[in-house]
Amino acid sequence: MSERVPSLDALSEALQRLPGVGPKSARRMVFHLLERDREGGRVLARALDRALEEVRHCRRCNNLTDTELCPICASSRRDQSFLCVVESPSDIPAVEQAASFNGTYYVLMGRLSPLDGIGPEDLPFDGLDRRIAEGVTEVVVATNATVEGEATAHYIYDRLEPQGVRVTRLAHGVPLGGELEFVDGSTIDRALTRRYSLEED
Amino acid sequence: MSERVPSLDALSEALQRLPGVGPKSARRMVFHLLERDREGGRVLARALDRALEEVRHCRRCNNLTDTELCPICASSRRDQSFLCVVESPSDIPAVEQAASFNGTYYVLMGRLSPLDGIGPEDLPFDGLDRRIAEGVTEVVVATNATVEGEATAHYIYDRLEPQGVRVTRLAHGVPLGGELEFVDGSTIDRALTRRYSLEED
Repeated sequence: MSERVPSLDALSEALQRLPGVGPKSARRMVFHLLERDREGGRVLARALDRALEEVRHCRRCNNLTDTELCPICASSRRDQSFLCVVESPSDIPAVEQAASFNGTYYVLMGRLSPLDGIGPEDLPFDGLDRRIAEGVTEVVVATNATVEGEATAHYIYDRLEPQGVRVTRLAHGVPLGGELEFVDGSTIDRALTRRYSLEED
Repeated sequence: MSERVPSLDALSEALQRLPGVGPKSARRMVFHLLERDREGGRVLARALDRALEEVRHCRRCNNLTDTELCPICASSRRDQSFLCVVESPSDIPAVEQAASFNGTYYVLMGRLSPLDGIGPEDLPFDGLDRRIAEGVTEVVVATNATVEGEATAHYIYDRLEPQGVRVTRLAHGVPLGGELEFVDGSTIDRALTRRYSLEED
């Protein structure tokens, strides 16, 4: 049978534009919003409108923000001379989980990818240069551990090292709490190559 | 560190009112909507507004609808004398998956639950009586297979049977395609009690 209710179908389709939401979870969400939490639906619609209206990229680091400078760039508690370079704004919450990080960020809005025709002129390296000129002494490159992320890290090293900036890379290896049997071979390879003496601990 | 962007936080919290969405998937959704699919965000906000504005309960069967009568009640292709009683509008799509069902619905908006103080006077049985009076000859009770759903089914039998209506119940047993080792004991118990001779097939 196929009698349809157009406004329910439209809401279900709109919810399926969210990552990880298929037809079945969209249906659950539709009934939840309309049967049990209409106020939640109104709150969500207003939060979407507001975020779409107000959220833009920080003019200094490209992070998502609803102010001219993002709260991290604007913070006096942050070490503005220590810069973490990431590919996307969505990588920042991951690094923020590290209690020890007290620096600032620069978002590349992508990574070098010759196969996709993305070269240095396609990414905002001019903004990175401006951040360096503001007195950055160390850049830790936190691009993804992919071929493109590695190539981007090396490009940044080649570009910044001559300017006297210390350029480092997040360490690769076995995740903490990870069970060895579930770690892939190339990670173990890397962890073996970079093994360290327990005396260092 | 805890520098926050208020409109991102508000959107993330609003998304977490959706069933099955926790902090991590809300974060993925926020970045997806703002970085990759702003149009999707606008479509979702408008679909929410429209559904919240237009969707109400069918005045005949309590199904969710954006018209006075739901499309199923209004359909001339449906057998109006064959009625399926469900607890909630969200149960209807499940029954609609059954290609053989060509009847109509009545939504009880709950089930009898003496422990929660929900008795017959708290559910819209008057609407069910009106549907019966319109010439219903069979009612199949598709309330959930819980203690409350069973009690509700028996109540409906006691109420309608004296009026000469045939009252049936969805069969219980091992799901098709289900692997026996994952089926719970009480279902197997029921399936044993209701076992049928292969001659009937």
